[in-house]
Amino acid sequence: MSEIRRDPITGRSVIIAPERAERPNEFQNRPAAPRGPQHCPFCPGHEAETPPEILSYQLDGAWRLRVVPNKYPALWAHEVIIETPDHNLTLADVPLDRAVDVFRCFRNRILHLKQDNRLRYVMIFKNQGEAAGATIEHTHTQLLALPMTPALVLEELERAREYWEGCRGCIYCDRMREEPQERVVLESADFVVISPYVARFPFETWILPKRHHSHFEAIESNAIADLAAVFQSTLRRINKALDRPAYNMVIQTAPIQETSLAHYHWRIELIPRLNKIGGFEWGTGVYINPTPPEEAARRLRLSPGE
Amino acid sequence: MSEIRRDPITGRSVIIAPERAERPNEFQNRPAAPRGPQHCPFCPGHEAETPPEILSYQLDGAWRLRVVPNKYPALWAHEVIIETPDHNLTLADVPLDRAVDVFRCFRNRILHLKQDNRLRYVMIFKNQGEAAGATIEHTHTQLLALPMTPALVLEELERAREYWEGCRGCIYCDRMREEPQERVVLESADFVVISPYVARFPFETWILPKRHHSHFEAIESNAIADLAAVFQSTLRRINKALDRPAYNMVIQTAPIQETSLAHYHWRIELIPRLNKIGGFEWGTGVYINPTPPEEAARRLRLSPGE
Repeated sequence: MSEIRRDPITGRSVIIAPERAERPNEFQNRPAAPRGPQHCPFCPGHEAETPPEILSYQLDGAWRLRVVPNKYPALWAHEVIIETPDHNLTLADVPLDRAVDVFRCFRNRILHLKQDNRLRYVMIFKNQGEAAGATIEHTHTQLLALPMTPALVLEELERAREYWEGCRGCIYCDRMREEPQERVVLESADFVVISPYVARFPFETWILPKRHHSHFEAIESNAIADLAAVFQSTLRRINKALDRPAYNMVIQTAPIQETSLAHYHWRIELIPRLNKIGGFEWGTGVYINPTPPEEAARRLRLSPGE
Repeated sequence: MSEIRRDPITGRSVIIAPERAERPNEFQNRPAAPRGPQHCPFCPGHEAETPPEILSYQLDGAWRLRVVPNKYPALWAHEVIIETPDHNLTLADVPLDRAVDVFRCFRNRILHLKQDNRLRYVMIFKNQGEAAGATIEHTHTQLLALPMTPALVLEELERAREYWEGCRGCIYCDRMREEPQERVVLESADFVVISPYVARFPFETWILPKRHHSHFEAIESNAIADLAAVFQSTLRRINKALDRPAYNMVIQTAPIQETSLAHYHWRIELIPRLNKIGGFEWGTGVYINPTPPEEAARRLRLSPGE
């Protein structure tokens, strides 16, 4: 069983998860994960290779999206959202209505898990490509529910609360109003996409809702449709500019048991994995980014999003 | 020129270093860095391919260790320690007296840079192998001097100070005394090697001096000899147990302008790069480690260190 350990001096938290050592390719320097649909556990016809499904969206008698428990769970609730039955598509390539399904599914899973008040935080994240930590090629997103709010999130919440108390405003809303055009990639009715001033990684990109919401799961249905379109456009720009890089996607949102917070604002972070993290970053927590975000935004603005 | 940016809300710091985008292989998915000594800028005969050297240790009219400025500096002082002229050796393989030279060189470089009081922190780190962030095959260590102490270090210093005020002891000394044998890998006259209770990475290994010192550069000459031997033994055990993995090495030490601190204790961290970091870790700061440190220590104890 997994165990959470926290070091009061370094401030580090870890999840010791021996079950995950059973995963195929664990610690192989060159993972030989099966490629192509023949041996893919996420492809239609291989449903028995995953644990029994939590839910699926159906179309014409076949599934078009499935949620299954992770076979090698790191914690109590660890789910995999298989976004499409088609092995050869990614979230950038699926038709818009399928992408809408995916974000709708994220919202619904959080709304469901929120009912369990032992759970405090839900992290939804995507590792696309081997360099980003994916062990399975078929496009999927993961969801991990935690019995505590991670220190990183707590600290940001605290700083945002301090700002709110001083300035009576949401710092994220205030910043969005002041964001210089040189760091804006695109804008839609409900969202703005930026290269953040303090981008840790080259071409790190944030998607922020224009209307104030602390919780991702509070998103309305028409905003979901807009989000899916904006997400796909952003990802296509990144794919074009950087030749379909491996990337991570993270939804940064408020703890699920909190009611709506005036001082916090959810966002999606997209992190292309272009450079390797080394000793300097582990030792200092400071990231060296060779691409100024202003330059990244310029290139993504010029890159086609269709 | 490099620029340090800090986000007061996320607490993140980055160094925006456009010069480093000029590096060969930057952002190539499959780096094609030249292999072997023929085209290696760190091999004898290619000295003109590095910036003019800062210092070298000589033997029989030839250099056996060189320090040069990084060709693609991320900050004001960014140095490379070329540990041996032999392209085919690593720090685990060089004769002990050469390893002693390397640690002696680390100390001497810090003692030198300390005289510049604009510099506040010196990070010495090593990226060995492509998966650990190395872009050059030939074994080397890097040194980066910062005009500020990184937040990660400041926070640990602060927590250690609080412990000292409460308990009148150094938490690292206290912990070392209480460290259960199951997490101890090896012990020498001056050092203890452990798998830390809160290991972020599988087989993460710490080397701690038994005698209290906050600053690495305060190390005495006989302790350097012991450290080099302990370091080589630890690295050889890791190499045997894990088939010479890519790894990072980091020296965690006190800020250089501080005088000796009763509450802080320097250490070396060795981080084999066996698993990939993904969205979960970026989003939460929590690391999922599939190998319990007690199991890692057991395997490293059994692994040959000669």
